[in-house]
Amino acid sequence: MDFIKMHGLGNDFVCLDRFLDPAENNPAETDYSELAQRLCHRQLGIGGDGLLLILPSEKADARMRIFNADGSEPEMCGNGIRCFARYIYEQGYVQKDQLTVETLAGIKPIRLQMKDGRVYGVTVDMGKPRLSAKEIPVNDHSDRVVNKRLEVLGKEIGITAVSVGNPHCVLFLDDFAETDVLAVGAALEKHPFFPAKTNVEFVRVDSGEEITVKVWERGVGPTLACGTGACASVVAAVLNGRTGRRLTVHLPGGDLQIEYAEEGRILMTGPAQYVFRGQLID
Amino acid sequence: MDFIKMHGLGNDFVCLDRFLDPAENNPAETDYSELAQRLCHRQLGIGGDGLLLILPSEKADARMRIFNADGSEPEMCGNGIRCFARYIYEQGYVQKDQLTVETLAGIKPIRLQMKDGRVYGVTVDMGKPRLSAKEIPVNDHSDRVVNKRLEVLGKEIGITAVSVGNPHCVLFLDDFAETDVLAVGAALEKHPFFPAKTNVEFVRVDSGEEITVKVWERGVGPTLACGTGACASVVAAVLNGRTGRRLTVHLPGGDLQIEYAEEGRILMTGPAQYVFRGQLID
Repeated sequence: MDFIKMHGLGNDFVCLDRFLDPAENNPAETDYSELAQRLCHRQLGIGGDGLLLILPSEKADARMRIFNADGSEPEMCGNGIRCFARYIYEQGYVQKDQLTVETLAGIKPIRLQMKDGRVYGVTVDMGKPRLSAKEIPVNDHSDRVVNKRLEVLGKEIGITAVSVGNPHCVLFLDDFAETDVLAVGAALEKHPFFPAKTNVEFVRVDSGEEITVKVWERGVGPTLACGTGACASVVAAVLNGRTGRRLTVHLPGGDLQIEYAEEGRILMTGPAQYVFRGQLID
Repeated sequence: MDFIKMHGLGNDFVCLDRFLDPAENNPAETDYSELAQRLCHRQLGIGGDGLLLILPSEKADARMRIFNADGSEPEMCGNGIRCFARYIYEQGYVQKDQLTVETLAGIKPIRLQMKDGRVYGVTVDMGKPRLSAKEIPVNDHSDRVVNKRLEVLGKEIGITAVSVGNPHCVLFLDDFAETDVLAVGAALEKHPFFPAKTNVEFVRVDSGEEITVKVWERGVGPTLACGTGACASVVAAVLNGRTGRRLTVHLPGGDLQIEYAEEGRILMTGPAQYVFRGQLID
């Protein structure tokens, strides 16, 4: 079995190219959940956060499926779809810089940032954020949860809640040294205000066009880069009147460019890197 | 750059074959410490516990160097040398089932277990254990530290101390459910009785030929398989009169066969597995 290993800001994927040969009739490959757990194992397999399947589509230019290392199938993955888009273009499966990708979360429009025939960045339309209490969800009745006072670890802080398909709780701070990100992240994740738990973003505004973000991922803890967390941070910064609508977001794993466009859609641009190609040995 | 990924009981290595081309004049490859840190990175690199270099030797059949993921160079690695030996035989670099490997810990004799021209097991002569207080080291003056009473977390337990190049503290128990392996392992690692700290093995004797071992590795915590920990457990079992001298050792990552031979040498036999071959993409 041949594969490619790619990553987007350190979020890494074992990619199987089944574009020309979907192999869905191949019994060895029908249980992708089991295959993902086996291939993503860091010591006994290839190692990765997920398995990314490159498939043909009847509705779009190509179809992406992602399986997490635990075998579950998320609807979408911002870091993964950038890897996917770069690969299918450079492989020659699509020959245009605006394309569409079929995912479980619908058909995603993608724009490639090109230089000398190579893809150096990929822009993904992440759709519109959901801001109502019910949609996020939060235990509140307000129209929007912007700079709401919440008591956490005995202190009152201001939080902004945003859903980008998953719930996010955004806090602004002047200096990372002043807050125990791990303790506050863990406490907010399980705070009763968030009935489905929440991701937590700690945001320092560096200028009107630049923010630095540390992410606490729900069920995971601190991670190198969370695309939806970066998007939620930008939406929260705009809602609080702290920045403009086009920002560079500095994450521990690298930078994303995020635009919260006037019509309410979020456009996320970031890198996708190849690491190696390989062949399993029986 | 081409590489092979292998593992021994889940202890995994990125292997670079420089047997025919030592490439020591290749400036890109002279800083193996930096290369190991880069290639062993689980998200941004190939991923591995260590980088294993396959080199020619003037003193033995081949020469092995290992660099840990943190860039340090250990003298020897029992799981790594099995991968090394299987590879050089199946690659045709040696054509005999008894061979010698040059390491920083000296020249190690190796015996291959063969079936149909393939290597299914590798036996490594691990040398003699060191049992004196000074050599282990422990804060004691006895000739041997066998079933010595030590107070840990408010309870008195019997421990046996053995060095197999690195210090080990071995405890016997009837049932893993009765002991908090994590708490006791962490406490013993830093117990003042062990001035250089220690690895800890929890051993259940299943029969005169079989033991089950859970290992707490010094500076790491619980691991899938520790070759020297398995060796120390067998030596301790023999010193305490609990088993014979040839044992199957069940570890979380798989089984090792270990013989504490009459002349005092330890022979460790275990598997080595290929996972994939790959090529870095620039």
